[in-house]
Amino acid sequence: MAKRVMRKMRRKGLASMAVQTVANTADATGSTTPAPDLGPAAALSCRECGERFPLGPIFACVSCFGPLEVAYELPAGGPEELRRRIEAGPKNIWRYAPLLPVPADVAGKPSLNPGFTQLVQADNLARELGVTGGLYIKDDSGNPTHSFKDRVVAIAVEAARAFGFTTLSCSSTGNLAGAVGAAAARAGFRSCVFIPHDLEQGKVVMAAVYGGELVGIEGTYDDVNRFCSELIGDPLGEGWGFVNVNLRPYYGEGSKTLAYEICEQLGWRLPDQIVIPIASGSQLTKIDKGLQELIKLGLVEDRPYKIFGAQAEGCSPVSAAYKAGHDVVRPVKPDTIAKSLAIGNPADGPYVLDIARRTGGAVEDVTDGQIVDAIKLLARTEGIFAETAGGVTVGVTRKLIENGVLDPALTTVVLNTGDGLKTLDAVAPTSGPTATIRPSLEAFRAAGLATD
Amino acid sequence: MAKRVMRKMRRKGLASMAVQTVANTADATGSTTPAPDLGPAAALSCRECGERFPLGPIFACVSCFGPLEVAYELPAGGPEELRRRIEAGPKNIWRYAPLLPVPADVAGKPSLNPGFTQLVQADNLARELGVTGGLYIKDDSGNPTHSFKDRVVAIAVEAARAFGFTTLSCSSTGNLAGAVGAAAARAGFRSCVFIPHDLEQGKVVMAAVYGGELVGIEGTYDDVNRFCSELIGDPLGEGWGFVNVNLRPYYGEGSKTLAYEICEQLGWRLPDQIVIPIASGSQLTKIDKGLQELIKLGLVEDRPYKIFGAQAEGCSPVSAAYKAGHDVVRPVKPDTIAKSLAIGNPADGPYVLDIARRTGGAVEDVTDGQIVDAIKLLARTEGIFAETAGGVTVGVTRKLIENGVLDPALTTVVLNTGDGLKTLDAVAPTSGPTATIRPSLEAFRAAGLATD
Repeated sequence: MAKRVMRKMRRKGLASMAVQTVANTADATGSTTPAPDLGPAAALSCRECGERFPLGPIFACVSCFGPLEVAYELPAGGPEELRRRIEAGPKNIWRYAPLLPVPADVAGKPSLNPGFTQLVQADNLARELGVTGGLYIKDDSGNPTHSFKDRVVAIAVEAARAFGFTTLSCSSTGNLAGAVGAAAARAGFRSCVFIPHDLEQGKVVMAAVYGGELVGIEGTYDDVNRFCSELIGDPLGEGWGFVNVNLRPYYGEGSKTLAYEICEQLGWRLPDQIVIPIASGSQLTKIDKGLQELIKLGLVEDRPYKIFGAQAEGCSPVSAAYKAGHDVVRPVKPDTIAKSLAIGNPADGPYVLDIARRTGGAVEDVTDGQIVDAIKLLARTEGIFAETAGGVTVGVTRKLIENGVLDPALTTVVLNTGDGLKTLDAVAPTSGPTATIRPSLEAFRAAGLATD
Repeated sequence: MAKRVMRKMRRKGLASMAVQTVANTADATGSTTPAPDLGPAAALSCRECGERFPLGPIFACVSCFGPLEVAYELPAGGPEELRRRIEAGPKNIWRYAPLLPVPADVAGKPSLNPGFTQLVQADNLARELGVTGGLYIKDDSGNPTHSFKDRVVAIAVEAARAFGFTTLSCSSTGNLAGAVGAAAARAGFRSCVFIPHDLEQGKVVMAAVYGGELVGIEGTYDDVNRFCSELIGDPLGEGWGFVNVNLRPYYGEGSKTLAYEICEQLGWRLPDQIVIPIASGSQLTKIDKGLQELIKLGLVEDRPYKIFGAQAEGCSPVSAAYKAGHDVVRPVKPDTIAKSLAIGNPADGPYVLDIARRTGGAVEDVTDGQIVDAIKLLARTEGIFAETAGGVTVGVTRKLIENGVLDPALTTVVLNTGDGLKTLDAVAPTSGPTATIRPSLEAFRAAGLATD
């Protein structure tokens, strides 16, 4: 309980800084800031107490310090008209502009244009896992920088534009750094990204190549985060949009597009079961929000769906809370190869527990060994090389089927949110040549590979 | 001249082996092989003497030993009907099934479904290069295994299916190995891929992770190729489809889809200028073939276009021949960081020279330093992290503009055929953190990054 209070206290500090930032921004322009054009977004609303605030770069309720989310004036007209409008749109997330906090003309602005990644009908994997009701992989490695982060960053960029920020920033352990660097380059923003100084070289190179500022912080990811919070409240950070801090309410909405795409790609139908990785838990909660919106708008038939959360055993605070029947999540110190999910104190953990329980889903975790096995299973059966986070969701799917929790007779969608090329180390020790031979038929015959 | 004869002699040997393979395949089935269903593909035709052969896994003319290519019965009906049919198709290469050697129901078969990658309007890069007529990057890093190889392999898989092969194979230095491994996994083929034993670990891991056989050959890429040619003629290789050898005529057709997509994405319009990387030269010749088909079918207006070929200075036999005014290409020993283009004896070199001269284009090369600069230029301006091959095309584009060869007032399309994550070493030495600091505002202020 003390931790919940402490988290609120931290939000309180950030909330007053955020309000200060808004004031600074208004001062800087020397005039009354015009209402930002963020399309159907009407206000920010506190997830805890429901209080509403005008759209701005704030992220915590000044009354109760709860997290803020975007409230909409959803489009008029019936579902048929909206469906037609969406289907006539571009093959990327901007087809859903009427449901996102972005201006109506967003598709014409410079952007990486992520989304509408493949929903792969995974018949080979289904056969191996005994799934008969249809198994699909939503493969977000097809995004421009090869992770789902391109979705959330694209929305944050539009918010940054609307609020007059000129620098994009974030704290990151890898995927987000690349996504922010690339998006800033395309959209014409300066960028300054903060990472722990001891990241793997590949992630550092990708974060640096787009030419923005890249600052290594001597410390852990938590230290990086804390530093960014300080920077937001300081004049040094004036005019900076931190995609995952002061733009977080907008940023988070990008994950809704996963829900929209899955349903549209299934023929405007809800899946029966979805398996989603948990880092902060934001993605899972926003996918649920997206599904609820589609139901409310009449774009899909209202029927039950189950949401399953997936964690690595080495960072499984939400899974532990779920299994113990708790409502709060006890923070842990992460120790897993699934580094993109290694958030020991997940902000949206309690909401994830609510959703898993409300929908009749579950939260489960798998060991690092099971993650590696699952990455290789997905590669071998479907030709998809997933990041460790994809190993977590596929591994958890397998475990939930084995335990009788996930129903193999129902339509199931499993998310792969990143690319195996970014986490080569996970599979490198067990993925090498079958044989190394001299270039001769005799040597090949002797290797015994030709007969199987 | 002696070299041209030797190449023909080698093709002759392979041609007789290939015919032998067809005979073996027929024997194995114990019956007359039915005509393969490859949609509009009618026959194979010799590029040199025009002799026609029935569709089969052969790749050299038995009369003159010239290379074979697919001849079509192009679809009846006018351009309007065909355009409607294409536009109603899936957002991948199968929308062009009426123009490819694949069965009509190809979109329903298990495939990685590559293609319809983004044609990025590169306004930032255009500004830096002084291009006023419209500059576009065709970004094939968006394909499932992040290179254009997914296109050619997808077509080869359909040919392998039609000819009853059960194993997919290739010789590769990286991109192709991953593409074949992944495609075989999805499509349900066994795979056995041959690579030089000393490739970079990342490429080895990606080639191995899909679970097929991966054989390291103690020798150079040329040794690997030679070994594969022997294997095709041996009973050990019976039932094997080598995508870039005995399935090469089909495989090559996959590159036509780049031409189709570029024109469709420009609004069914030919670009004025295209800059294409040269490895074997096949991609460039097939893009030209694709453009010619679109003109013949009336899908685009017939007007002049110029094709430019791009090489790395360290492997520039075609560029050297172009500049010297030669019709033949003198082989070289490659020495460049652009390893995916490092073919010292490009099979289609003479055809590339013909096309560059016929269309009023050119062939140019850039140094390794210019390649690195161009990768970083593209990343900084457009948020696209290209493989070294993309550095070659962007670098050559810049050089051709500076030399007054490429007209900046015309619509120009530049190909990026691969992903920077696969060639990190090229930019790693010059892409790192701007600063590494303690997590404090003082340290950040001292680093001097906040003001610019």
